[in-house]
Amino acid sequence: MVTMDINCDMGESFGNWTMGRDAEVMPYITSANVAGGFHAGDPHVMRETVALAAEHGVGVGVHPGLPDRMGFGRRKMDATPEEVKDYVVYQLGALSAFAAASGASVQHVKPHGAMYSMLSESPEHARAVMEGIQEVDPDLVYLATDARIYEVAREFDGLRAVFEGYVDIRYRRDGSLIVEKQMRPKDPEEVAARFVSIATEGTVETVDGETIEVPAESVCVHGDGPNAVELLEAIHEAVDEHDIRLAPLSEIARGDADRR
Amino acid sequence: MVTMDINCDMGESFGNWTMGRDAEVMPYITSANVAGGFHAGDPHVMRETVALAAEHGVGVGVHPGLPDRMGFGRRKMDATPEEVKDYVVYQLGALSAFAAASGASVQHVKPHGAMYSMLSESPEHARAVMEGIQEVDPDLVYLATDARIYEVAREFDGLRAVFEGYVDIRYRRDGSLIVEKQMRPKDPEEVAARFVSIATEGTVETVDGETIEVPAESVCVHGDGPNAVELLEAIHEAVDEHDIRLAPLSEIARGDADRR
Amino acid sequence: MVTMDINCDMGESFGNWTMGRDAEVMPYITSANVAGGFHAGDPHVMRETVALAAEHGVGVGVHPGLPDRMGFGRRKMDATPEEVKDYVVYQLGALSAFAAASGASVQHVKPHGAMYSMLSESPEHARAVMEGIQEVDPDLVYLATDARIYEVAREFDGLRAVFEGYVDIRYRRDGSLIVEKQMRPKDPEEVAARFVSIATEGTVETVDGETIEVPAESVCVHGDGPNAVELLEAIHEAVDEHDIRLAPLSEIARGDADRR
Amino acid sequence: MVTMDINCDMGESFGNWTMGRDAEVMPYITSANVAGGFHAGDPHVMRETVALAAEHGVGVGVHPGLPDRMGFGRRKMDATPEEVKDYVVYQLGALSAFAAASGASVQHVKPHGAMYSMLSESPEHARAVMEGIQEVDPDLVYLATDARIYEVAREFDGLRAVFEGYVDIRYRRDGSLIVEKQMRPKDPEEVAARFVSIATEGTVETVDGETIEVPAESVCVHGDGPNAVELLEAIHEAVDEHDIRLAPLSEIARGDADRR
Repeated sequence: MVTMDINCDMGESFGNWTMGRDAEVMPYITSANVAGGFHAGDPHVMRETVALAAEHGVGVGVHPGLPDRMGFGRRKMDATPEEVKDYVVYQLGALSAFAAASGASVQHVKPHGAMYSMLSESPEHARAVMEGIQEVDPDLVYLATDARIYEVAREFDGLRAVFEGYVDIRYRRDGSLIVEKQMRPKDPEEVAARFVSIATEGTVETVDGETIEVPAESVCVHGDGPNAVELLEAIHEAVDEHDIRLAPLSEIARGDADRR
Repeated sequence: MVTMDINCDMGESFGNWTMGRDAEVMPYITSANVAGGFHAGDPHVMRETVALAAEHGVGVGVHPGLPDRMGFGRRKMDATPEEVKDYVVYQLGALSAFAAASGASVQHVKPHGAMYSMLSESPEHARAVMEGIQEVDPDLVYLATDARIYEVAREFDGLRAVFEGYVDIRYRRDGSLIVEKQMRPKDPEEVAARFVSIATEGTVETVDGETIEVPAESVCVHGDGPNAVELLEAIHEAVDEHDIRLAPLSEIARGDADRR
Repeated sequence: MVTMDINCDMGESFGNWTMGRDAEVMPYITSANVAGGFHAGDPHVMRETVALAAEHGVGVGVHPGLPDRMGFGRRKMDATPEEVKDYVVYQLGALSAFAAASGASVQHVKPHGAMYSMLSESPEHARAVMEGIQEVDPDLVYLATDARIYEVAREFDGLRAVFEGYVDIRYRRDGSLIVEKQMRPKDPEEVAARFVSIATEGTVETVDGETIEVPAESVCVHGDGPNAVELLEAIHEAVDEHDIRLAPLSEIARGDADRR
Repeated sequence: MVTMDINCDMGESFGNWTMGRDAEVMPYITSANVAGGFHAGDPHVMRETVALAAEHGVGVGVHPGLPDRMGFGRRKMDATPEEVKDYVVYQLGALSAFAAASGASVQHVKPHGAMYSMLSESPEHARAVMEGIQEVDPDLVYLATDARIYEVAREFDGLRAVFEGYVDIRYRRDGSLIVEKQMRPKDPEEVAARFVSIATEGTVETVDGETIEVPAESVCVHGDGPNAVELLEAIHEAVDEHDIRLAPLSEIARGDADRR
């Protein structure tokens, strides 16, 4: 029986500004990537998001961003590896306190936006961040979005890395993703079929009709998509039909972390 | 043999701006109150400050402030008890991660500036903060600057509160302190004598020549005073002469926490 | 023929976070209070808001807030009169540059949230702000929400103050307003009738059925109300029926500024 | 008779953090580049800096930076041309209000740190900023640090660009500057000689002993250099001896702006 995680970015509201539909989406996911207060989120939002996750048995991870709230952490900046490491450690610690307050602990780290891109492009930055994570808690899972970062994470003894795939946006033949600035509604059947394909075959059909390997143990869904809840419902139905088990990252990474 | 702690605010630099003489003062203190990144400090400064403290065997505590960097956390704001609680939890968590990264852990909490005043004036705010601290780590010590907060802290089972005194600024007859906007140099002998008096008698002479009770187990020194290092050296000499032991708050609070 | 202004808070989005329905509301108002980047708004939002206003012939004013983005400028803080003055001057200048870029100029100043409350409660703060406004541009209009500030504004030679009223929330007998945390939908006929009453009689019926004086030349509408556009349409119809002329504050204040 | 401007970065303090020795340096310069509150400076610092400049007859310009206070605006970020343009317009406007409050007006624009580098490397960004400046005030002077930006500025009809040189750090043969992370003390005679050489010959000797053209009408001095005041005194003496007139940028750019 295959076990899969469904992760989603959460806690991206800030002060009086609301973003996302966290309360609607949380019941359908198993791991929440919670913004750490730099690009999005604030102490109050973090507390509420962690409490909501706990209520639904959802594992929480930190979704650390660059200190660029005006740009929502989506603009790469010439920060050094040490600076990025310290930004991750800071936000990881902050989330850990809220997790502790709700009787839980942080299970994973998934860098957000431009910080993710910087780690993907610079192994030196990626290594610094992995070191930072290990210094704080060697049991954390690193949720890797691409192969380059996954490889860096694998260099670290003990660090558990889990590879993630996408089903509500499409892959190109080269494995890259067709990012949509404004998510369009998607066909629930197709999305669910891709989820099953990744879970059971470790492959997915690209936009060109090719089949490529996506050896993911977690699938990221966009909670802000126009029919996100519908897609998640379809995934849950398909999961039941195909005897796929859903579980938070912490349970997945406990087993064979090197499926990829 | 009496054991006393010497605490000092540290890590108040921010980005390219330097504040304080942390490297000069750290060798003489036993507990460092480290700014949490809201009113002062940033992730890099926090890492460096925690490392410097570890090097000198100094216990670290979080010195959380209001989210008002432009006002250095010195302006009271109409934040709710829940908001202030979340600010403390966030900054406490962030510092904890850097402490973990240097192999240590956070030993205490001492709110900064206007946040301290708000807790002192509103028991409801003080209680919310104590609750927040306990939710994160029930072993933390609350460093109490005045009797009102000390009393609130004492309501909480298990929460260890330590009362602090001052020796480089003077007390009035009513126990209030004569705060100096710009610290003037002080006479080292007088300052050291006040330290010994608090440590051995639990009393101090006010500016009017009266003797009042200051049942403190920790003394706060101003690291930015013009002759701070000279004062600290005089305290250390006096401490040796009077057989007073210096130790971080965590050791002091382990014993009889109810000296006050 | 009576001339009235309709003002509304605008430009409260920030970075990736959207707030309000500026594009829908702008066609119905005559003056826009544009957030200055402290509590809400950012340079890009300011440029877009000023351009949208220019497109609809709407006068722009600055809606300066306290430097508290996390609290949306709604928490009073112990800032000095000089500090608040400088916050207003800074944000006024910033908006002026965007106004100049769109060929217009700033016509008025209306402090936001807690800053407004601070000026209302402390004449010293209010005076400092009026001085700041006059130093930058003596032709600006001060949009006064209550009698206390209006009186302070009237102390300043040359400063034009305009008093504003409300029609989508109710007055109490003492002239205070029943603020709604979450605006409820309102009856368009009632709202329009109140607008006409203020415009033609200078009075409004309170929630208790009393009639009180509201000598306003401008009416503030809440753009985020659930049926804001419907209310504005009803006001526009009533305005046509009653031969009331709508015009930006700059035209109103040019005439007899002392209607109140 | 040659006229030269001496410009210096000013107003880089923030809240309780002090940077630079503005009061000591201001008497010796003719143009001040005032931080606009994004990378450094705040409303209060801006008011004080503008007042200090006015007292000494020093022209003020805006020294706009990226919205990265933690990095002091020294880290390039993937901001679009439109974003950078809006950051410049916002800060320019804010400074203009303080200038107006002290009876003056902003004379020039000199982008700071990483923003300067971004404009130098991307003509598209540089053009967007020049457009933004012209939209706000076509009479502003653009203080150009390198030839590439100077050329872009020259594309704009009416925009006055002035080229600046350096005398307290050295040039390489290719015209690039040897930037010092921590300024070392310099020989006053040598620095003054370089100033005279630029002013009267439009050339300077490089670190390799070559002579290169530096057709500057303004010289930038580092106010935070360890012997900045001594260097400025030597420049003033040399200027008197060589009949060089010192004047703010606004007077220089009024004449033949195309000396370069």
